[in-house]
This record gives sequence, C-alpha cells and structure tokens, in this order.
Amino acid sequence: MIKKITSASNPLIKELIKLKSVRERKETNSFIVEGKDMVDFCYENNMVKFIISDQEQSAYQCDQIIVPTFILEKISSNKSVPSLMALSFYKEENKALGNKIVYLDGVQDPGNVGTIIRTALAFGYDDVILSIDSASKYNEKTIVSSKGAIFKIIPRDNLTIDQLKELGYYIIVTSLKGAIPYKEVSKKDKFVLVLGNEGQGVKEENILKADVVTKIAIENIDSLNVAIAGAILMNEYR
Amino acid sequence: MIKKITSASNPLIKELIKLKSVRERKETNSFIVEGKDMVDFCYENNMVKFIISDQEQSAYQCDQIIVPTFILEKISSNKSVPSLMALSFYKEENKALGNKIVYLDGVQDPGNVGTIIRTALAFGYDDVILSIDSASKYNEKTIVSSKGAIFKIIPRDNLTIDQLKELGYYIIVTSLKGAIPYKEVSKKDKFVLVLGNEGQGVKEENILKADVVTKIAIENIDSLNVAIAGAILMNEYR
Repeated sequence: MIKKITSASNPLIKELIKLKSVRERKETNSFIVEGKDMVDFCYENNMVKFIISDQEQSAYQCDQIIVPTFILEKISSNKSVPSLMALSFYKEENKALGNKIVYLDGVQDPGNVGTIIRTALAFGYDDVILSIDSASKYNEKTIVSSKGAIFKIIPRDNLTIDQLKELGYYIIVTSLKGAIPYKEVSKKDKFVLVLGNEGQGVKEENILKADVVTKIAIENIDSLNVAIAGAILMNEYR
Repeated sequence: MIKKITSASNPLIKELIKLKSVRERKETNSFIVEGKDMVDFCYENNMVKFIISDQEQSAYQCDQIIVPTFILEKISSNKSVPSLMALSFYKEENKALGNKIVYLDGVQDPGNVGTIIRTALAFGYDDVILSIDSASKYNEKTIVSSKGAIFKIIPRDNLTIDQLKELGYYIIVTSLKGAIPYKEVSKKDKFVLVLGNEGQGVKEENILKADVVTKIAIENIDSLNVAIAGAILMNEYR
C-alpha cells in the first residue's frame, strides 16, 4: 500500500518523529533507518515495516509512505537528510543460544557496540549479549556502525553471566588485571567472551565469576580500544 | 605568564577561534585540545603552547590565558564546553624511520585513524604514515580517538609507498582480493603494513606495489572495520 501524507500533524508522522528517542524506540521495538544501505540491510532481513520517502520506491515490495522533504527532515536524526528511510523493527529471536558468545558488560559507546557486533558476525560468533548498562541496540549509532550485522546477529539483553555459567559456558573475562596471556587460554567449545566498559573495564563482580581472566600484552599506553581488544580475542578463539 | 583576556575581539582570541578549521590548524601547526585528559596528554609530551581556562591552573608550569566562559564557548568545538583547554602543536619529528610502519592509504574516518594510531603505539610500531587523502592528524576526532597516542607517535605525511620500497621496506598490503592468509605472510624485520579506505580499500596502484597482498578470512559479511583488520594484522606482525 502506498500512502501520501503531507501534514506533519498527521498522527503517524508524530509517532515517527517520537522515534528519535532511544527510549521510545525501545518501548515500541521500532526504529528509523536512514539511507539506501541501511534500508537495504533491513529489507533483506525482513525487518522493514514500511518505506518512507519523497517518492515511490519501486525496488521494495512493501508498504510505503510518501512525504514532502520537510517531513523527512523532521523524522531524520541526521544533518544531511536522505530521501529514503524505513521504519524497522527487530524480529524476536527464538533460536537457541549458540556456543560462541560475546557479552558486553557496560560498553557505552554505541560505535564500539556496533563494531563489536560487526566483528562477531564476521568471525562466526553466534550471539552478542548486552548488559543493561551497555549502549542500546536501538541507538542509531550502534545500528549504523554495525554495517547491517545487527540485523543478522540481533543482540540479546536478558541474560546474566550467572545464567550463562549455569548453562555450562566457560567464562573468559578480559581485563588489564588479567594474569593469563590470551594465547594461553585453553580452547573450549562453549564459551562466553566478556568485554568491559571503556573506562572501568569489566565489573569486579563479573571478574570474580570468570573461569579465566586474560589480557593482551601492550606497551607505551594504558589500554586498547574495547572493540580492538575484543576483535583480537574473538579472532583467537573463533 | 598569566594573561587575562575578556574581549572576544582580542586578536589572539580571534586566532584561537579560527582554529576550529582543520585547514587553519594545518597551516599553523597548532590546534586546541579540550578537557583535562587531552591537555595532560599534550602537556606530558611538551606540546602545549599555553593553557586556556576560566581560572588559573596551578598544575601546569607554562603560559596561561584566563578568559570568561563565553569565550571558552567560542573557542570550543564541542557542545559541552570544558573549562580547561590548551593551544597545542606537533613537535617536528627528526628521528629516523623505524622498522615497523603502518601506512594509511585514504583512511577517511578520523575515529579510525585515531584508533589505528592508538593500537600501533600499543603494539610497539615505530611510525604511522598518512596518505594525503587520509583524515588529518589535525582533525579533533583523530586526536581524541587516539587517546593521547598521537602525541607519542606523531603521524608523518610526506612519504609514498614508492619511497618506502626504495628504502628497503617489505610492503604488506591488506585487501579483500588478497590471496595469502595473513598468518602465512613471512615475517620481516623491516616492513610497512598498508591499510586502505573504508569503502574502496587500498588503491589499485598501491596494491600493484605490494610484496604480498594478504587478507583475514571472514564470513557472513562483506568486510571488517579497517581499524579492526589493522589491529589483527599489527598484532600478528608486531
């Protein structure tokens, strides 16, 4: 169905504008993606509710709303407003947890979270779990920096390290306090790699739950970026 | 010397405001850093010309200018304006090129460039070289995302791959078209690791100059983030 809307006070448009707020996105499990690349990533993964554009888009077999440019500007979160957007949603994940999991314990920069999801997908990890204090999967920067990976490996946010331990996962925590060089960690079939906050690292309470606390040797500087450290470890244990 | 300035039309303040432009920073080899962490990184590396603050800062033994908040706001490039900044500069690098070099061929995102510099320093690389079409070392995001590493491993921008080849460096190019898995690249004492643009990768002309073209095996997605790929290779060849 293709629908033209020309008024910014239309109730649907008002709903779309509200979705600039991450909280609103979370509550409604819906978010706007902007630009052809992002729309295509969502579309390929059947996560588009409808297309939003200033003209009919024949490439997409789904509902569309056509709006004037000033409404696109109101809906967009970006300075340069694209003429193609989509209202999208995350499908419910019903599949069982896989064997190779990355757990983000308070990773706050959405660019880091998105990059870690992209890397996890590229290295064949099954799941990414976000602690409640990590950047949200609804944050636009998380979505954009994942380069579409987030639509294939939708992060979960309802599991604790205690629960994962009970499920028999081997818990590998990375910390500057780690004693074991990362190449010496014994390989397990079923494991969780825990990465921590940019400033504080993994929370002390979660370090205590680890089966092994490991580190990457560095020189000249205090720390690596968390997405960089995560990538080196994901690559080693993949 | 401590100097109070209260007018935004003061010539020095006008110069400082101009430094929001990367071109102006480049031409004058000077840039503003904002916030205590960044100021401290510069100060420790003797790259502060003077401190800019709304009050005297007894922690720093160097020239200071004291200005009201509205002038700090004019100088700052950030939404949340810190009360401590510094005018900084890059020292001229007179030391000879080291053996382990990272060359960025058109890496455009300053966050990626900064993160690569941070990783290069952490893994003991000697030099980072930026092609003319890479993000500038004067870009504020490059500086901030390097977490101070850029003051210790100041990127060079006056060397081509041809020159490096003539100097006897082994040229390792990473490309999705690469045939050699990265772990099979033979280790050399003196080498250059070439990383390419986020979208296009390393330029074709530079791929042709490589001694080896290597790749990291990935699945499910087209590519890794360049700072991630770079980190895995830097770690392997360090």
